[in-house]
Amino acid sequence: MNHKTGRNVKLGKNIAIGSDVVIEDDVVLGNNISLGDNAVIRKGAKIGDNVIIGYREIKPGQDAPAKPLGTEIGDNVKIRSGSVIYWGTRIGSNSMVGHNTVIRENIIIGHDTYVGSLTMMEGDTKIGNYVGINAQCHITKFCDIGDYTFIAPIFVGANDQAMSYRRRAHGQNLVGFTTEKYVRIAIGVTVLPGVRFGEGCVVGAGSVVTRDVPPYKVVMGAPARVVKDAPREEVVR
Amino acid sequence: MNHKTGRNVKLGKNIAIGSDVVIEDDVVLGNNISLGDNAVIRKGAKIGDNVIIGYREIKPGQDAPAKPLGTEIGDNVKIRSGSVIYWGTRIGSNSMVGHNTVIRENIIIGHDTYVGSLTMMEGDTKIGNYVGINAQCHITKFCDIGDYTFIAPIFVGANDQAMSYRRRAHGQNLVGFTTEKYVRIAIGVTVLPGVRFGEGCVVGAGSVVTRDVPPYKVVMGAPARVVKDAPREEVVR
Amino acid sequence: MNHKTGRNVKLGKNIAIGSDVVIEDDVVLGNNISLGDNAVIRKGAKIGDNVIIGYREIKPGQDAPAKPLGTEIGDNVKIRSGSVIYWGTRIGSNSMVGHNTVIRENIIIGHDTYVGSLTMMEGDTKIGNYVGINAQCHITKFCDIGDYTFIAPIFVGANDQAMSYRRRAHGQNLVGFTTEKYVRIAIGVTVLPGVRFGEGCVVGAGSVVTRDVPPYKVVMGAPARVVKDAPREEVVR
Repeated sequence: MNHKTGRNVKLGKNIAIGSDVVIEDDVVLGNNISLGDNAVIRKGAKIGDNVIIGYREIKPGQDAPAKPLGTEIGDNVKIRSGSVIYWGTRIGSNSMVGHNTVIRENIIIGHDTYVGSLTMMEGDTKIGNYVGINAQCHITKFCDIGDYTFIAPIFVGANDQAMSYRRRAHGQNLVGFTTEKYVRIAIGVTVLPGVRFGEGCVVGAGSVVTRDVPPYKVVMGAPARVVKDAPREEVVR
Repeated sequence: MNHKTGRNVKLGKNIAIGSDVVIEDDVVLGNNISLGDNAVIRKGAKIGDNVIIGYREIKPGQDAPAKPLGTEIGDNVKIRSGSVIYWGTRIGSNSMVGHNTVIRENIIIGHDTYVGSLTMMEGDTKIGNYVGINAQCHITKFCDIGDYTFIAPIFVGANDQAMSYRRRAHGQNLVGFTTEKYVRIAIGVTVLPGVRFGEGCVVGAGSVVTRDVPPYKVVMGAPARVVKDAPREEVVR
Repeated sequence: MNHKTGRNVKLGKNIAIGSDVVIEDDVVLGNNISLGDNAVIRKGAKIGDNVIIGYREIKPGQDAPAKPLGTEIGDNVKIRSGSVIYWGTRIGSNSMVGHNTVIRENIIIGHDTYVGSLTMMEGDTKIGNYVGINAQCHITKFCDIGDYTFIAPIFVGANDQAMSYRRRAHGQNLVGFTTEKYVRIAIGVTVLPGVRFGEGCVVGAGSVVTRDVPPYKVVMGAPARVVKDAPREEVVR
């Protein structure tokens, strides 16, 4: 319970604070919040009710690491109510997480990015700056999402071609998807393991993407095929 | 903390009540509930654990409105645990909201309607009476959903043809979908911006709907096409 | 408040315990937990923050049963934060439930099975042993899921061909899906009422399954069709 708290911090009720937690100036914490060991909440961040920061999952037979990984919530980040942020995750300044969302371990999120409500991020993923991942998406493990990527709601990506759960190869050969900059993915899209989305490409609603998408092309359908060029002028911020 | 409470109200623990809140007779509130300023909870409503009513999001640089919009939960409405109802939303009598659902601002829901668990409603939408919106649906902004509409689980609607997030046109030209009366939409359906569903039409499972559906027709596929007439006798309540 | 508690039990804050609850040895309960009447938490189970066990829904005009159905959480089961387990549900030993998941009434889950985060299970369903149901799935009522079944994220099954909500046939002729052993269902799959998945079959990503799948076949597409044999050697644990 050895933690540092800055000035002008507002604390709600029933806040559980682990060891070596840092809460910087102007932070606002709601009610029923848990901050795990080594969590850092940067200046001006706002954490909603019933949020868990730095949740740590120890698997049966596993020891906790000697030096626990911290969780860092950047300046002015907003985490809405009911969400869980696992340990070893970092969220850059001015980013936002919606309600009832689950962000697992070792996810690095850039600045000015948002992750919508009811989204699940499985862990071990890097997300750039100015990214929009909308509500009810499923971001599998081992993805790399480039700056300015936009992913519309009800998206799902896979990382295991063999669906080997409970089989001999379980946990091997996992590979998520990669997006370069300026990618736009419409609602209801399904993506197979290892797909690479080229810079500025666009994926139509309801598509099932089975192979790489070239830069500045529009693909759609199941399986998704190139139907035309994607306009370059739209990608400029 | 200036609020009125009726007779025979049951209150759980850890209830945070804003200013000018009204709680009518026979209301049941669980534990860890937050009622925002100007919220009205009508007679006999039941609010589950960890629910937030009248959640108010102030964006950076924005002031709160001079006169806060209230949130109204109608007679005998049931809101299940873990859900968030933003301010400026009204829910009619005998309606029901599932668990861990998010209903954003300025949504007007009729009476005898239900919204399933883990559903996300983005805001600025009108929903009629006797409507069923099932679990894990995504209802985008600016929709109009007619009486007796049924939407099965894992539905997603879009409102921005250009996916212009972080681009120049961001937030312009948004248009949701509209359903007339008696519309039935099966599981796993994806709907593009601006689609109008005619009275009594039926949409098959897994369809991607890209244009208007005529009244009393069945459509299916990706893109969805008319395959036959929808039986009129089934729509009668 | 007549309950039995074993040895070496760790209890968080704000725990509400109903009548005739049993908490066995070595159980860990987090904060803000509710255990309904007759709930049994077996040896070594871990229950996360904001979880509700044994949630009981009484419909208007309905009486509670004379003898309430218990809810049983098996040895070493882990229920993560924000989830709701209704009454009359049993979860076998070493199984796991993710965050913010809803498991309704009368669901029997085997041992060594997991149910992912943000998943909705509607009730009256039997699930075998060594099953994996991933995040953000929708398991409708009246399903039977065989041992070693794997269901990837964003799955949806229906049980009412007529979508008869608010119509005369409402609640009649409901039939879910059945999987035999070793079935593997990829991401983003949609399944119509009454489908039977044969032993060891594989369903491709984004498929819409409208009829039974033969054993040891791979199906894909919308509607899904057999494309090749599924390898038998992979099913062995």
